Amino acid sequence: MSSMGGSADENLETKEMDARSVSSSHGQEPYVHKVGIPPRQNLFKEFQATVKETFFADDPLRSFKDQTKSRKLILGIEAIFPILSWGRNYSLTKFRGDLISGLTIASLCIPQVLDFNSCLEKQDIGYAKLANLNPQYGLYTSFVPPLIYAVMGSSRDIAIGPVAVVSLLLGTLLQSEIDPVANEVDYRRLAFTATFFAGITQAMLGILRLGFLIDFLSHAAIVGFMGGAAITIALQQLKGFLGIEKFTKKTDVISVMHSVLSSAHHGWNWQTIVMGASFLAFLMFAKYIGKKNPKLFWVPAIAPLISVVLSTFFVYLTRADKHGVAIVKHIEKGLNPSSVKEIYFTGGYLGRGFRIGIVAGMIALTEATAIGRTFASMKDYQLDGNKEMVALGAMNVVGSMTSCYVATGSFSRSAVNYMAGCQTAVSNIVMSIVVFLTLQFLTPLFKYTPNAILAAIIISAVINLVDYKAAILIWKIDKFDFVACMGAFFGVVFASVEIGLLIAVTISFAKILLQVTRPRTAILGKIPRTTVYRNILQYPEATRVPGVLIIRVDSAIYFSNSNYVKERILRWLIDEEELVKGDYQTRIQFLIVEMSPVTDIDTSGIHALEELFRSLQKRSVQLVLANPGPIVIDKLHTSNFATLLGEDKIFLTVAEAVAYCSPKLAEDP
Amino acid sequence: MSSMGGSADENLETKEMDARSVSSSHGQEPYVHKVGIPPRQNLFKEFQATVKETFFADDPLRSFKDQTKSRKLILGIEAIFPILSWGRNYSLTKFRGDLISGLTIASLCIPQVLDFNSCLEKQDIGYAKLANLNPQYGLYTSFVPPLIYAVMGSSRDIAIGPVAVVSLLLGTLLQSEIDPVANEVDYRRLAFTATFFAGITQAMLGILRLGFLIDFLSHAAIVGFMGGAAITIALQQLKGFLGIEKFTKKTDVISVMHSVLSSAHHGWNWQTIVMGASFLAFLMFAKYIGKKNPKLFWVPAIAPLISVVLSTFFVYLTRADKHGVAIVKHIEKGLNPSSVKEIYFTGGYLGRGFRIGIVAGMIALTEATAIGRTFASMKDYQLDGNKEMVALGAMNVVGSMTSCYVATGSFSRSAVNYMAGCQTAVSNIVMSIVVFLTLQFLTPLFKYTPNAILAAIIISAVINLVDYKAAILIWKIDKFDFVACMGAFFGVVFASVEIGLLIAVTISFAKILLQVTRPRTAILGKIPRTTVYRNILQYPEATRVPGVLIIRVDSAIYFSNSNYVKERILRWLIDEEELVKGDYQTRIQFLIVEMSPVTDIDTSGIHALEELFRSLQKRSVQLVLANPGPIVIDKLHTSNFATLLGEDKIFLTVAEAVAYCSPKLAEDP
Repeated sequence: MSSMGGSADENLETKEMDARSVSSSHGQEPYVHKVGIPPRQNLFKEFQATVKETFFADDPLRSFKDQTKSRKLILGIEAIFPILSWGRNYSLTKFRGDLISGLTIASLCIPQVLDFNSCLEKQDIGYAKLANLNPQYGLYTSFVPPLIYAVMGSSRDIAIGPVAVVSLLLGTLLQSEIDPVANEVDYRRLAFTATFFAGITQAMLGILRLGFLIDFLSHAAIVGFMGGAAITIALQQLKGFLGIEKFTKKTDVISVMHSVLSSAHHGWNWQTIVMGASFLAFLMFAKYIGKKNPKLFWVPAIAPLISVVLSTFFVYLTRADKHGVAIVKHIEKGLNPSSVKEIYFTGGYLGRGFRIGIVAGMIALTEATAIGRTFASMKDYQLDGNKEMVALGAMNVVGSMTSCYVATGSFSRSAVNYMAGCQTAVSNIVMSIVVFLTLQFLTPLFKYTPNAILAAIIISAVINLVDYKAAILIWKIDKFDFVACMGAFFGVVFASVEIGLLIAVTISFAKILLQVTRPRTAILGKIPRTTVYRNILQYPEATRVPGVLIIRVDSAIYFSNSNYVKERILRWLIDEEELVKGDYQTRIQFLIVEMSPVTDIDTSGIHALEELFRSLQKRSVQLVLANPGPIVIDKLHTSNFATLLGEDKIFLTVAEAVAYCSPKLAEDP
Repeated sequence: MSSMGGSADENLETKEMDARSVSSSHGQEPYVHKVGIPPRQNLFKEFQATVKETFFADDPLRSFKDQTKSRKLILGIEAIFPILSWGRNYSLTKFRGDLISGLTIASLCIPQVLDFNSCLEKQDIGYAKLANLNPQYGLYTSFVPPLIYAVMGSSRDIAIGPVAVVSLLLGTLLQSEIDPVANEVDYRRLAFTATFFAGITQAMLGILRLGFLIDFLSHAAIVGFMGGAAITIALQQLKGFLGIEKFTKKTDVISVMHSVLSSAHHGWNWQTIVMGASFLAFLMFAKYIGKKNPKLFWVPAIAPLISVVLSTFFVYLTRADKHGVAIVKHIEKGLNPSSVKEIYFTGGYLGRGFRIGIVAGMIALTEATAIGRTFASMKDYQLDGNKEMVALGAMNVVGSMTSCYVATGSFSRSAVNYMAGCQTAVSNIVMSIVVFLTLQFLTPLFKYTPNAILAAIIISAVINLVDYKAAILIWKIDKFDFVACMGAFFGVVFASVEIGLLIAVTISFAKILLQVTRPRTAILGKIPRTTVYRNILQYPEATRVPGVLIIRVDSAIYFSNSNYVKERILRWLIDEEELVKGDYQTRIQFLIVEMSPVTDIDTSGIHALEELFRSLQKRSVQLVLANPGPIVIDKLHTSNFATLLGEDKIFLTVAEAVAYCSPKLAEDP
């Protein structure tokens, strides 16, 4: 026992062994199978297995096995550029699907990004109409990144480009560092720097195979976060929608509503409101049609484009801009200029850009991964999460050098892409070409597009992110998840995007920690007509065995819960003893711990078992274990606890353990 | 299915139901018991149960049940002051044990604290012989806190007072804020402030019933931390032991060794070394005797006192202090003065004191709780951890107002206390009285005590904290725990106490997170001559069922692992399909997921199951679940997954699930 404290309990054990041979001579016991001890593993092998399961759980090198060197090289290149692999089987039929879906997402994308972009720089339009901060950056971001992704990515359905939530987050974070009005060049440079590091973060997570880290943002947290972000974005649009000139820089609902209401008397422009409201009604109606009849999915998809064309034409004819209707005014013509030299690689902004980049990169990754996984499982193909991250990272690094902001997969456009029948990432290329043509030839036409229309498009787009049905389902399934969801939602709405994220992550972690700190325990009973023992709360018909208390521990026993588990078991025993008090016949003499769910145990856990054993000994209750798993039985042996307890007190099943205890009970006075 | 994505798989289900009724008409199946759904619980009740299990796991109000009001009041007062309860049964026999043990720990304590205290202010003796920073503060701390604890605490064996590790930690933290030489009044005031907040922290943790937080410092981390701290403390003693005058302020081994070696030629004092070394040999020999013969436990216990008396007398006679042997010189006579006015309740030091207090308070709590639990389990009495924290907190708050530093339970003195036969906390009162007499009458006698003797006592006391046997056992049982242990050890030795702590906590948390991120999965096989299915790695004799793959998931399915679990199950399937490739007879047609260890599932987990179900459907493999627990089956129903899957595909045991699958296999072409 060395330092772990057991002293002279060994003689007890031999006594028990005798008792056991006596009881088995009764011949009542069925065939008893020994609890297996797994073959001892080499330490290096064990370590290797853990590393593999942690970082290479998806076995990415499977296809490389047993191949020649040149074949391995080709496979390696194909792994980095999947287009080389699926491109070989590309056909005209597939292209038809990709063309249609590409055109559809382009028609949805162009109006959206014009305004997503204004999310990012929301106080510029209206405050300072600075040429180099206008919406063409959104178009740039819809041109380069989708091309890179098409070559390197492996999702067939994701639609790449700037998205509302990431734009909002990036805008909020950048603003807190640099005033975009006073310092607009620095602001833009910091945005590219952040984009660069967002890409680096994404690629590094993939290369280091740490992709599992984004799993720590739970589904519930994402639902809440997205809902909160959608409401924040929609509220921001009130500025364009109501034609308010002076607007708050903050994103929380209180500041925004204060801005809106305080400008009610003099700041609203009725022409703007009428125009915005009628097109919003049109967009919502188009959506409703699309929902009613899935075959008409293209109606909501092209409705934004129609709105933009109609409203632009209308403003051009009526010159409504003279009456206070804010318009886009000027979009730079031409392709993405290089921005390599604008990225801060030195100086004080380097660190800030790095920090912002990490946060924005992680959020962008979460969104893209969720989309990729959803559609991959719908079409049943596998996505290598870590490889996807490398593709997304490369895309953003290249983007940061070609005047793009952080791009990622868009939920709404990806869904439209899927429904329009996209086959491969070629649909992204098609969209990219359309954006290219727009940049080259059509940007002047957007001059008279009223901001109110863009606001209406955004409102109708983001409102879907408020997934109240999912929230209701989360409430039904898991109350703790719901708290995380609401925490994220209200955090985003009432404080800021970062606070919301922080709340969601904290609650999610707290949930994990609570589970490992206070694992459940259950009393088991025998289910009638079987030899199966189950939780008596779940199976009220299960009967207890007199004189035997069977307790199942529902978690690995670690330092964080070992003490609780020990004390909880003792409490069950005390409760039970009080119940049968006075009834000598059924005094508890055996305590069986069912260890099936105990997947692991550490040194603190072994300590707790020893203490439990000793406490039970003092009460003349015998401790019996049922079905310890491979790791647990191994540790029970190395720590000598198995010897202290008695090897014969460890059984394969609860039924066998009960069979061991029951005849002994009969023998007792 | 609402937003969770399932569309039109319901017709499949009815088909399956028919198949099921056909197969059961074969009459081959044994009695099949339905999987129980626990009775629906009221939301409030459920919440109440969770709160109770989390914060009131030990059911502290048990004894208050069904009592009259006045009885409840008495019980309440007794709960705060347990002395009222055990004091009634106090007897002369008990007092004899307490007297002997109290005298023994006092004789061990007085010499120790004289020097533990110098830990705290290690650069003062030698640098600046400042009267009000001398060792009497250690004696003060051994006088008041034990008295308070005796009245409020419930451990019968713990010996309260200043301890080495906490003194070291407090000293390091305080030094980093205030230079104890230049600013000695502020330094002392900050120490009292930190002590005050350490007490408040401890009491609040107890009152808020957050005591379980200290469980997050694992056994392994404590072993490493204590070992590292012991070595650091021992190295610090080289200053007194070698008679070095100029010594580093840092605690890491490199700085200390550099100090020691650079002073080798001119800074060492041979008289000091000879004296220190001989008494160290004497102390070690006394320890050896105590270990060889447990009945002579009092030999090592009084050896320090003998050393102090002998060496003091020797120095007094030879006036060795004139030859460079450093002595204690002056200890203030008299009882603890009030220090209420010295605590910073305002100003900049308030925050620092608060921060230091939290850290020191938590460490002190960890030590006291570990000691309390150990001895309580040896004598088999229950300790209410949260109540203990309130007692310890109150003791330190009172201490901070009576010129005491942070006090806690001492490992070595508690062990001596236990072996000397202590019965109740009265042994602490006895010790306290001895310290009182010392303070009142004996302090002048310590004037000539050489520092080298105090160093020798400390070295021989702390060296036991290096528990290499425990470290070896940890290595054997759990490699990850060993890494945490070594991280704490080397962090303390090579960097600082805080860094060591941080490393240990981080590694421990990483372990928990790894477990919930990458849970184990196992293939099950049938154990011959039973209907039991177990891990085929643990039981190599277990046989697989042809056409059926049985996988057990060894953890709750949460957002952090849901995706991994889904993909890992699919990978098992792919591996298995490759094995049986070409063999049409045994093509995998059923995948049974054994859910016994799946204690909980959240919304992400339900999603993952849905995705798994859909992927399997594409491969014409049927998903079957075995033995979902009460919470899981409840959630499977609320989320409608049970309907999607088919209620008839959920079984009580793996054996029943296999029985359902096997006849169907036979029917197949």
